[in-house]
Amino acid sequence: MLIAKVIGTTVSTIKDEKLTGRKLMILRQTDEKGEPTGKPFVAIDTVNAGVGELVLTAAGSSARQTTITKDCPVDTVIMAVIDSLEVDGQLTFVKS
Amino acid sequence: MLIAKVIGTTVSTIKDEKLTGRKLMILRQTDEKGEPTGKPFVAIDTVNAGVGELVLTAAGSSARQTTITKDCPVDTVIMAVIDSLEVDGQLTFVKS
Amino acid sequence: MLIAKVIGTTVSTIKDEKLTGRKLMILRQTDEKGEPTGKPFVAIDTVNAGVGELVLTAAGSSARQTTITKDCPVDTVIMAVIDSLEVDGQLTFVKS
Amino acid sequence: MLIAKVIGTTVSTIKDEKLTGRKLMILRQTDEKGEPTGKPFVAIDTVNAGVGELVLTAAGSSARQTTITKDCPVDTVIMAVIDSLEVDGQLTFVKS
Amino acid sequence: MLIAKVIGTTVSTIKDEKLTGRKLMILRQTDEKGEPTGKPFVAIDTVNAGVGELVLTAAGSSARQTTITKDCPVDTVIMAVIDSLEVDGQLTFVKS
Repeated sequence: MLIAKVIGTTVSTIKDEKLTGRKLMILRQTDEKGEPTGKPFVAIDTVNAGVGELVLTAAGSSARQTTITKDCPVDTVIMAVIDSLEVDGQLTFVKS
Repeated sequence: MLIAKVIGTTVSTIKDEKLTGRKLMILRQTDEKGEPTGKPFVAIDTVNAGVGELVLTAAGSSARQTTITKDCPVDTVIMAVIDSLEVDGQLTFVKS
Repeated sequence: MLIAKVIGTTVSTIKDEKLTGRKLMILRQTDEKGEPTGKPFVAIDTVNAGVGELVLTAAGSSARQTTITKDCPVDTVIMAVIDSLEVDGQLTFVKS
Repeated sequence: MLIAKVIGTTVSTIKDEKLTGRKLMILRQTDEKGEPTGKPFVAIDTVNAGVGELVLTAAGSSARQTTITKDCPVDTVIMAVIDSLEVDGQLTFVKS
Repeated sequence: MLIAKVIGTTVSTIKDEKLTGRKLMILRQTDEKGEPTGKPFVAIDTVNAGVGELVLTAAGSSARQTTITKDCPVDTVIMAVIDSLEVDGQLTFVKS
């Protein structure tokens, strides 16, 4: 899984019918302090994550293992909101 | 999923029989403003996307979760046309 | 899928029994003009592609969706020979 | 699989219900000497790995092939703790 | 699939029970001449490959399509030992 920051949202009218009502968020991968380091990508939200929050994402067929994404043509899912990250005994991120 | 721009099309006569009648588009990944940043790749179109449009693509086994791509030897699908992208409260892309 | 150029072949005597009789080609990813840009990789050929030809490849579980690769331990398949590529209304590659 | 070093832990209250009680560790890929070389990523621990240990990780659908991760929306699993690594006849890492 | 060189071995006592008795080799991707170019990774050996040999590896769910790896939490398998590689009509590698 990747640590990622939710940076925005997408709007799409023409889409696969299984995506109706799904929230498609824009994210960027972050380092262990929550600082964005990667290119933007899009994931389906299953935990009501908000813009600005740090989350965990699962990719591939694993992205379809939630009740919201089952059998959907989606390859990345937000399945956890991160409260805190600890590296080598130090807190490197705490949700504000 | 990736945000990608449709930049072209492919023509292929000799191909797996399951690909008959499928539209194979050439795309490039973009950033959150819709500017192409990545190498070209190819995806099956399931939403009548046109050259020049910004779309979402799903990869891997997830690409086979549409009625058009079921059981096909394809690993990337266009499953949504993007109307707009919003990052940090600002519109960064609007379909013209 | 990737646009790739077939650059060579592999010979292997000791291999998984499901690979017996399969053609394992060496390829390199190309740009939209057919110019090689990536590292070499290997794919199973299902469309009698020849060295020097431009092809499409599918990766992951999608590579096992052909009659030749079903249940095989292979993660990349050549499933189409490219006749031509068109980008922004211009032909960028035509099979000679 | 990747050789990776466990560098920390994540805490998450809001998450997919299948993740309840699972340990989500932060790791970085290492070289063959156990020196971290890659970006941080997150994996489910199935072998009681501790921070500082070198482990093996499996990704994709393979990450769901353990009793702990079956049907979970997770794409990376720690499934072995590394005792030692040997390259070209020389020990390059020994667990202390 | 990737062309890779077997460079070493791993030893692991604490591991998923399905890995018992399996050989976990350390490899590096190579170019078409057999020269290592990539970071080390680990694969299950199914063809008795030795250190120093050039092999083919399959990744993802395809890695579980051999009798040795079925249902195992492993994402990369060695499923062929390479005898020779030929590029543009020239032998670029011959097993010694």
